[in-house]
Amino acid sequence: MATFRTVKGFRDFFPEDCALRNYIFDTWRQVARRYGFVEYEAPLVETTDLYRKKSGDEITSQLFCFEDKAGREISLRPEVTPSLARMATTRQRDYKKPMKWFQIGSCFRYEEPQEGRSREFIQFNADILGDASSGTDAELVALAVDVMLAFGIKAEDFVIRLSNRQIWTQYLTEKAVPEEHATTFLSIIDKIERAKPEDTAEKLSNIGLSLEDVRAFMTAADENHPIFATLRADLEARGLWQYVRIDASIVRGLAYYTGTVFEVFDLKHGLRAVAGGGRYDKLCALMSDGSVDMPSAGFAMGDVVLGILLSKTPGAQFGITDYLNSQMGVDAYVVVADEAQRAPALAAVQALRAAGVRVDFAMTAQKVGKQFQAAENVKARFALVFGAEYPQVQMKNLVSREQTMVAAEDLASTVVQAVKQPLVGKLIA
Amino acid sequence: MATFRTVKGFRDFFPEDCALRNYIFDTWRQVARRYGFVEYEAPLVETTDLYRKKSGDEITSQLFCFEDKAGREISLRPEVTPSLARMATTRQRDYKKPMKWFQIGSCFRYEEPQEGRSREFIQFNADILGDASSGTDAELVALAVDVMLAFGIKAEDFVIRLSNRQIWTQYLTEKAVPEEHATTFLSIIDKIERAKPEDTAEKLSNIGLSLEDVRAFMTAADENHPIFATLRADLEARGLWQYVRIDASIVRGLAYYTGTVFEVFDLKHGLRAVAGGGRYDKLCALMSDGSVDMPSAGFAMGDVVLGILLSKTPGAQFGITDYLNSQMGVDAYVVVADEAQRAPALAAVQALRAAGVRVDFAMTAQKVGKQFQAAENVKARFALVFGAEYPQVQMKNLVSREQTMVAAEDLASTVVQAVKQPLVGKLIA
Repeated sequence: MATFRTVKGFRDFFPEDCALRNYIFDTWRQVARRYGFVEYEAPLVETTDLYRKKSGDEITSQLFCFEDKAGREISLRPEVTPSLARMATTRQRDYKKPMKWFQIGSCFRYEEPQEGRSREFIQFNADILGDASSGTDAELVALAVDVMLAFGIKAEDFVIRLSNRQIWTQYLTEKAVPEEHATTFLSIIDKIERAKPEDTAEKLSNIGLSLEDVRAFMTAADENHPIFATLRADLEARGLWQYVRIDASIVRGLAYYTGTVFEVFDLKHGLRAVAGGGRYDKLCALMSDGSVDMPSAGFAMGDVVLGILLSKTPGAQFGITDYLNSQMGVDAYVVVADEAQRAPALAAVQALRAAGVRVDFAMTAQKVGKQFQAAENVKARFALVFGAEYPQVQMKNLVSREQTMVAAEDLASTVVQAVKQPLVGKLIA
Repeated sequence: MATFRTVKGFRDFFPEDCALRNYIFDTWRQVARRYGFVEYEAPLVETTDLYRKKSGDEITSQLFCFEDKAGREISLRPEVTPSLARMATTRQRDYKKPMKWFQIGSCFRYEEPQEGRSREFIQFNADILGDASSGTDAELVALAVDVMLAFGIKAEDFVIRLSNRQIWTQYLTEKAVPEEHATTFLSIIDKIERAKPEDTAEKLSNIGLSLEDVRAFMTAADENHPIFATLRADLEARGLWQYVRIDASIVRGLAYYTGTVFEVFDLKHGLRAVAGGGRYDKLCALMSDGSVDMPSAGFAMGDVVLGILLSKTPGAQFGITDYLNSQMGVDAYVVVADEAQRAPALAAVQALRAAGVRVDFAMTAQKVGKQFQAAENVKARFALVFGAEYPQVQMKNLVSREQTMVAAEDLASTVVQAVKQPLVGKLIA
């Protein structure tokens, strides 16, 4: 019975959890690099004002925000986009446009933990700054699709629900709804699928609109709407339009989106959105008080819903198992069968590691059987036995059970070659 | 002129900084895996009581500690060992001993920022739990040495200053100093190299000791002291004893060490310690109120002093340059010389990326010259030109300036092969 627990909503990553986390990180990173994105990172703590500036004063209710000992108002970051805007506008002259930047790290939100939501979670953020074209939007949608595919999540498992904020701007203009109602209106649309129709109808009528008309407009706004034409042509050329479903109810809760918006949803388990993003052309200007105007777009994917989806998607398991095989085990376990040979065994451990071989061994005298058991525990591929036959060393393949004697002086080169051979059998079930 | 700045003592990682950070992470990770360590991660936030339990109430003055909205006392972690002890004691039955665990992540200390110290810093932690032997201590010292060597920091650049707390325990027993003075005594020894001799002499005399005698004992406690015999034999067998210098003034400030203690120092630049650690056999028992007794040892290395040392060590630069070459550029840049060919160009971008090639391209129509300029900016190795000759594609090696025509259908396989060839020339100066 331990005395201490994690803080509510925070997670431990025991080695098996951390390996899965690393698999997610590596997959994000690999696909982003294939797309020519470069990685950055922002501080985990920023001034609370940074988040107020972007999202208004109400945001503080969802923040881990504090005063430090010098009275500064600081917050654990709830998202990375405000930091990105701060960084990019501060040094935008140093980078060629478009800037294709990605980031992976923890974020924090003070909300009730539940399935798919924890207070500390990890986000992958991909953003393109300094390009206003729909080609940029297509590149981001394509990246989101390829990230899902890289995880072994297939066309039948997920969909990109996509819209454009401007179809609603145009609608409000046509209906002569005053601009001050735009935010209220978008928040009604954002909730339209979950709210009671009578409540939605009442809220709409308050700003002079009818639910029936809004619903008819939403149905008509399909993939043939001209606003999607260039984006569609681009994604069709890439063979990726099949993953996209136009859905005018997608507006994204946050007020700062200005054009394309999209969310990634699983199709089989009814989970929360796996990822979401869009175009935010005015954020950099806002965050720099107008000094840097940089049209931008991006999306974020969290690790929590993704992790749930991976666990529920059989096809995703193969990649994970291969990865765990490569990350969790060692290549060789040095067995000291005769303590008189500990010194040459230690020298061999050192030489093998210097050659890049992952090696473990019993750091104290142990019975041989116990050492072989330890070799299996750490999923060693080979056992190297230093005993009475030294300077001959017994090399045992723990998967195939083959064994051979190797001269100590040839051991490092022999093991390096052996480790390069394809694995026979599975080390992790 | 941007509006917002980082919070004092916090750092941005722009892409070039992040690449260097990733180089450090990958090096830590690779060497730790060669040693058979598995990775874990703990929350960035823990209860403040966790740190009070380990270090006493005074620790809160150095913490970013807060009350959350529900009145919980929580802290940004200043180190990872208390979390490790919490995690390991909670689930120690699930893991075979010894547990060789490592971790990489941010820690936070509320102290005045200065060279080598920032308020958010990144630590590499390596610990072995459940083994009391000096073989474990040797494994950790060897890991610390190999991490330094892996960074291109050589024997002439660094040293492991090593001692054992018990030589002082024995000394105090011999001198009949009451046990309640042990902590005071160790803190005097900890500062002996920086404090004024007269101040040290006075403090020692207060507990019945003389500076002269202490100094004589320190000089006598050299590598022939029997307490180091088994550790020395182990590290000699590994060929690593040459990196160790016995130094009885090393006690490590923190009270919880019980045996071997060591710090890694550079030899040329007078920097703060690069890493430090030792044996802490009683911590798990303390953190679990005695329910789990697990002898343990470990060390931590921070990124800040290490980063300064890397920048000052010419030999360390080669590894970094190779790494940046592999991380920062793309393999191919697709040039759309004729907008009529954008669709097949996009299809090729997609096919190349699916084959694992890192590809960038102009997402909007651009003049050909500007696209070639962009290709150089992103350090592309090849340009692939889609123009009037399509379905023939011009493939241009941007390093050697060789060029050839490739049929579109053979493009992916041709580029995949070409990318595997050794690089001719350098893409990053």
